[in-house]
Amino acid sequence: MTNTPEDFWCVIPAGGAGTRLWPLSRAGSPKFLHDLLGSGRTLIQSTVDRLEPLVEDRLIVVTGRRHAEAVSEQVPQVSADRLLTEPSPRDSMAAIGWAAAVVERLDPQAVIGSFAADHVIGDEERFRALVTEAVAVARHDYLVTLGIEPTYAATGFGYIREGDALAVEGAPHARAVVEFVEKPDAATAQRYLDTGEFRWNAGMFVVKAGVLLDLLATWHPELAAALRRIAADPALLETEWDALERIAIDHAVAEPAAAAGRVAVVRCDVPWDDIGDFHSLAGLLATAAAAGGEVKDDALHTVGPADVVTVDSSGVVASRSERVISVIGMDDVVVVDTPDALLVTTRGRAQHVKQIVDHLKAEGRTDLT
Amino acid sequence: MTNTPEDFWCVIPAGGAGTRLWPLSRAGSPKFLHDLLGSGRTLIQSTVDRLEPLVEDRLIVVTGRRHAEAVSEQVPQVSADRLLTEPSPRDSMAAIGWAAAVVERLDPQAVIGSFAADHVIGDEERFRALVTEAVAVARHDYLVTLGIEPTYAATGFGYIREGDALAVEGAPHARAVVEFVEKPDAATAQRYLDTGEFRWNAGMFVVKAGVLLDLLATWHPELAAALRRIAADPALLETEWDALERIAIDHAVAEPAAAAGRVAVVRCDVPWDDIGDFHSLAGLLATAAAAGGEVKDDALHTVGPADVVTVDSSGVVASRSERVISVIGMDDVVVVDTPDALLVTTRGRAQHVKQIVDHLKAEGRTDLT
Repeated sequence: MTNTPEDFWCVIPAGGAGTRLWPLSRAGSPKFLHDLLGSGRTLIQSTVDRLEPLVEDRLIVVTGRRHAEAVSEQVPQVSADRLLTEPSPRDSMAAIGWAAAVVERLDPQAVIGSFAADHVIGDEERFRALVTEAVAVARHDYLVTLGIEPTYAATGFGYIREGDALAVEGAPHARAVVEFVEKPDAATAQRYLDTGEFRWNAGMFVVKAGVLLDLLATWHPELAAALRRIAADPALLETEWDALERIAIDHAVAEPAAAAGRVAVVRCDVPWDDIGDFHSLAGLLATAAAAGGEVKDDALHTVGPADVVTVDSSGVVASRSERVISVIGMDDVVVVDTPDALLVTTRGRAQHVKQIVDHLKAEGRTDLT
Repeated sequence: MTNTPEDFWCVIPAGGAGTRLWPLSRAGSPKFLHDLLGSGRTLIQSTVDRLEPLVEDRLIVVTGRRHAEAVSEQVPQVSADRLLTEPSPRDSMAAIGWAAAVVERLDPQAVIGSFAADHVIGDEERFRALVTEAVAVARHDYLVTLGIEPTYAATGFGYIREGDALAVEGAPHARAVVEFVEKPDAATAQRYLDTGEFRWNAGMFVVKAGVLLDLLATWHPELAAALRRIAADPALLETEWDALERIAIDHAVAEPAAAAGRVAVVRCDVPWDDIGDFHSLAGLLATAAAAGGEVKDDALHTVGPADVVTVDSSGVVASRSERVISVIGMDDVVVVDTPDALLVTTRGRAQHVKQIVDHLKAEGRTDLT
């Protein structure tokens, strides 16, 4: 059961190149535009599918100019006036803040929930119920985050340290937030896990549009004012946008607001993954195959219409080509075949894909990145 | 110093798909047509280069119809009447026997030397001197083979068991052959190596054209007669060729002739490799790079104009594409990138490439094989 409170809007910032998923994901073709899990829906489509029951058409996508056309094709239900197109990337605070300012003008008391376009979430019914709890808390002027229950001592995410339970009606999973902490080293991550006080920061924020902008105005008044001006007069986009401060919403608002006691967390115990790299993708594909009762000769999973002939191999093969791909005797391999770039590595080295992208950029080969 | 005795002809059978070098080598584009070592010359070009000092233009290439045009382009110095084109593959006895019959008509006492189009041989001066010794022995009506000094207990080659030294003037390295033995298992190969009596059978034969055909007539009279008829009247090729017995020269002549005491061997202590698979190719590339004093960040060698960006990897990348190929953290990897097929494996699994080709053939996908 999902309610659709008229004051709740969803914002989907669709950005980020997904560098560690290169060459599948590129600046020109970022991961949210791909159906990485073979579900028949791209990540941004799945994200919209997941949120629509909560907000119907009160849904705004913020993306870059070069992706606006692809986004519009993939999620045609998002009307042109609700597809905000950034002239240039100005990080997450500008993207979400712009949407907040647009919503604030339509409904000064509205609550917005911001959810990345390229995350994978399981148990969607429960997820929506937890978002609804977060909305209830946000109506009390909190900046609310959904904190993911850690399943292992991850070093790739920031963490949220929980405080006491909050007594908000309709939000039994809500607690105060003591602080946000940066990505830890392995020992620290293990300690976080052992205490039971820490949640992964998945960058999901639920907050009144006006509260978000007022908080921003406390610490970054110029940015808050500029975003409100642009929302009031879209013609200012061309002259003001490129000069906006580049800052992430975590640093701009969430961290100082936590220190000021203004942040709450709703514990989110649903499966979540940001598909940060090919190791993560291979794990998700294995889980999906097992859930589907798929019987395979080996554990080599595929992305895309890959024509794979394999012997004794495991890992993932992603293909954007018509070619037959043959893999023999490779454990936990990662093969990504695209028209202009081929990657061969292992799940264990998935984090190092970024090095290749950095190298190509340094050589000026940005057509490949 | 090389002499060019007027009675000596070279025959180069250019056939074999090189299945274990798939997808680089194919039935339609076999390995002899490729410059696998980056020398600037294809294997058949290098083979002709190696033999020309011995025979000038007394050189015959035997190949299949589908490769005749490519061979003619690659070795234009072989005139059309010395490029024998087989209507269909009939194994090595028919190919070499046909050339022998053609040479026999031009010079009944001529000696022919048969050398595969796709082997790699080092120290070419010494090699030619040893071939010249073999020619001297062949003039005494022996079937002479060049026996490669084994450098390890190979299981991928047949062996030649030596007997006593032969007292032939100008051939100090000549010995009688006791027998040819099939590819051994590892323990047997080691025993062969330990005795010092065994040489690798590289399929190199030097013999009078007439002696070869007379020996063949002893055990396969129909085949010998048909080959002589075709040489006498090339118009018979269309009607007789496809009916020829399919048999390797080793089984048809070399083995029974050895049993009859008609075979000699010249010990051949030059570097030799048949580039049987990608493990072998990677080793040759490493040797060539080391000999060239090449300094590499890692030991990932390339074939073709490969655009490779690599981190912490070793092995070989062969490319027939324009793509950037990125390899991260792979030891002894084999990556072969062609327009319609991609192979990823390891040097240790190089022998299993044939399984993929067999699988594709079984699926009727012969366009890929």
